[in-house]
Amino acid sequence: MTCTITAFERSPDGGKGLARDTRVRWALEEAGQPYQVRLVSFAGMKEPAHLALHPFGQIPTYEEGDLALFETGAIVFHIAERHAGLLPEEANARARAIAWMFAALNTVEPPILDLVTVRIIEGDKPWSRERLPLVVDRIRARLDQLSARLGDADWLDGAFSAGDLLMVSVLLRLRMSGILDDYPTLAAYVARGEARPAYARAFAAQLAVNAPVTG
Amino acid sequence: MTCTITAFERSPDGGKGLARDTRVRWALEEAGQPYQVRLVSFAGMKEPAHLALHPFGQIPTYEEGDLALFETGAIVFHIAERHAGLLPEEANARARAIAWMFAALNTVEPPILDLVTVRIIEGDKPWSRERLPLVVDRIRARLDQLSARLGDADWLDGAFSAGDLLMVSVLLRLRMSGILDDYPTLAAYVARGEARPAYARAFAAQLAVNAPVTG
Repeated sequence: MTCTITAFERSPDGGKGLARDTRVRWALEEAGQPYQVRLVSFAGMKEPAHLALHPFGQIPTYEEGDLALFETGAIVFHIAERHAGLLPEEANARARAIAWMFAALNTVEPPILDLVTVRIIEGDKPWSRERLPLVVDRIRARLDQLSARLGDADWLDGAFSAGDLLMVSVLLRLRMSGILDDYPTLAAYVARGEARPAYARAFAAQLAVNAPVTG
Repeated sequence: MTCTITAFERSPDGGKGLARDTRVRWALEEAGQPYQVRLVSFAGMKEPAHLALHPFGQIPTYEEGDLALFETGAIVFHIAERHAGLLPEEANARARAIAWMFAALNTVEPPILDLVTVRIIEGDKPWSRERLPLVVDRIRARLDQLSARLGDADWLDGAFSAGDLLMVSVLLRLRMSGILDDYPTLAAYVARGEARPAYARAFAAQLAVNAPVTG
């Protein structure tokens, strides 16, 4: 049964692949699963039909037969549980990969998302410029720790997993800021993620929606 | 095999149960599993021995035989997967409960944690007072949506699950702020969580560490 995900009709990033549907597309590509996409407008995301799928009025959602899911982490996990390629089979390694999924979304991403708050959501406030270095320091504290743990390994814990998929996706948000340039091993880690054929297909698919080539 | 978790030697909240070890204690109590606790000082959390367990130098961690885990969400999920009482057996209901786990930690908690940033971490900054209402508005936006979804149900999706355990734990952070008072159905939801015997045991266990009765 082919699943259906939702994505922005027009992503705020204009096709840089930072919208969260890219993470789900990537997981589906790693798993070799076909999928359909239903595009949703910003107005449509606040409509009752979409709120029934996603209580917080966001994308992506995931529908497959009787199942409707929201939350990117949960959708990626659902895909990873059902198809090979995203979680190790050995029980302890699997539990550790799941820990990295939570770590990416819960420990590393929140300080990174604060960049959007300080620069854009509160970008017109008088404190924005003075607050920015505090936000950046909190990001650097996490990257220092993550970089120390990764060391010179290719992936966070053995083979590529859904934990890496989410961590690379989270770190990609930093590319435009230049912060990642100070962490060569993390930059190389992100580049390894982007070099995966499944990522390339996911990126191309979201780009086709957001920056269609016009003839 | 009895697992060992880590907790603050002295919790910053003085025993209000907001430190994340309470969430893991609660899950273990719901699952009826005994556990041991190793207390860690703030200095000890930054030592190599603890960083080997938790790359971001936090608590809780979870050790069980050869397995070492970090990230509260991942630890609660590990417990929920192995013992009855925290996840439904039916596959779709289980996937939805996991979605609520991610939603609690990834969508509802970050704006709530921003209260700590604006009030404490940046409490001495000139923008703190003016920024506070923006932070509160973002929390209210999430609570409006969560309250609408919960409606008059007891739990978020059928029976009590690990999703409720984490959501109640996240909302408990708001009690002192008074924000929850404007959401009577959410306040009642939190009270239902606190009324569970497993929560009461977990709360008492962390309190015994942080506010020991002296004779």
